[in-house]
Amino acid sequence: MPFPWRSAMSQSIEFWFDFASTYSYVAALRVEALCEVAGLKVNWKPFLLRPLFTEQLGIRDSPFNAFPVRGRYMWRDLERLCAKYSLPWCRPKAFPRNSVLAARVACVAGEESWGPEFVRAVFRANFADDLEIGDASVLADVLDEMGLPSKEILQRAVSPEIKDRLRAHTTEASTLGMFGAPTFLVSGEMFFGQDRLEDAIRWAVTR
Amino acid sequence: MPFPWRSAMSQSIEFWFDFASTYSYVAALRVEALCEVAGLKVNWKPFLLRPLFTEQLGIRDSPFNAFPVRGRYMWRDLERLCAKYSLPWCRPKAFPRNSVLAARVACVAGEESWGPEFVRAVFRANFADDLEIGDASVLADVLDEMGLPSKEILQRAVSPEIKDRLRAHTTEASTLGMFGAPTFLVSGEMFFGQDRLEDAIRWAVTR
Repeated sequence: MPFPWRSAMSQSIEFWFDFASTYSYVAALRVEALCEVAGLKVNWKPFLLRPLFTEQLGIRDSPFNAFPVRGRYMWRDLERLCAKYSLPWCRPKAFPRNSVLAARVACVAGEESWGPEFVRAVFRANFADDLEIGDASVLADVLDEMGLPSKEILQRAVSPEIKDRLRAHTTEASTLGMFGAPTFLVSGEMFFGQDRLEDAIRWAVTR
Repeated sequence: MPFPWRSAMSQSIEFWFDFASTYSYVAALRVEALCEVAGLKVNWKPFLLRPLFTEQLGIRDSPFNAFPVRGRYMWRDLERLCAKYSLPWCRPKAFPRNSVLAARVACVAGEESWGPEFVRAVFRANFADDLEIGDASVLADVLDEMGLPSKEILQRAVSPEIKDRLRAHTTEASTLGMFGAPTFLVSGEMFFGQDRLEDAIRWAVTR
């Protein structure tokens, strides 16, 4: 019980993530359990990093590829973090994978009860099972295994309404001053990086 | 007592820092106390970030200035971190300050007993008292207040031997695959960022 002082109010924490992001994977598998203990609701916020990287860094790839010294460290660090938190880990053959369709499905999920489990399943597909999460068939398998109507959901994922919703998330991330993922947002305070999850929770429950 | 399982061997941890680096400030003021509890010796490794940034990112400034969205977050984050760890904090009027001479003096200190206190005093001068640590007079004041022969030490700091030593540190940092500061090195394992200090210590005492 790392956070025994449960929030008195129905406080919440926004978890901003990109399915292509390695550190988002670690955070996605940890965030709900920690928040539950602290009495916090998680608001899941899928967005796309690539437009932010292009806008802010002038690159069209992951910074971990564009700056390979940084990338080499990241891959080793991920192994260690997954060992630390007892998470499965397999360095994916492709990186970063196209996360647009998966993020749109997460937008379809919205506030529905299957959302969190879908997010975790896609992250595991990418970083534990090394599956091509950019393929609709992989996402269909994930949805089918959850007993969900994959065909309808994937159709809805490419509707103009859902495309706009994901674009709006990404624009909001940029407006809020985000520059990477995962990012946690608590009452206007931003915490960047999976290793700051505990700080974000502490912020939420102590004010 | 966050690390009650003291290291049985005389293990050590290398702390790589740049006096211009904000997150190095936080780590510099925390590292020795935590390592002492864990039974670890700290090896202080001053180096210069600028050559690494130029080499790896193609920039001649701090990434926090070159990428201002990242920089805006960093300044707020530093306020919060200093509050969290009860450290004094004053956002410096100039950033990044020229850290070459201070790093050379830290090289003069080497393994001498006044090294750690000098390092902390210079970091406090930069980030708590907003003093121009690039000025020899500021460093002389720091040394004088410690009761040290400032004139001799500052003369030795600009000797070819000491200049070479700092250059060697920076080259070694680059060769080891470093890309920022602070960085902790434990038995060949690298941990980047002040928020990974505890992970580095855990690594050292559990193997």
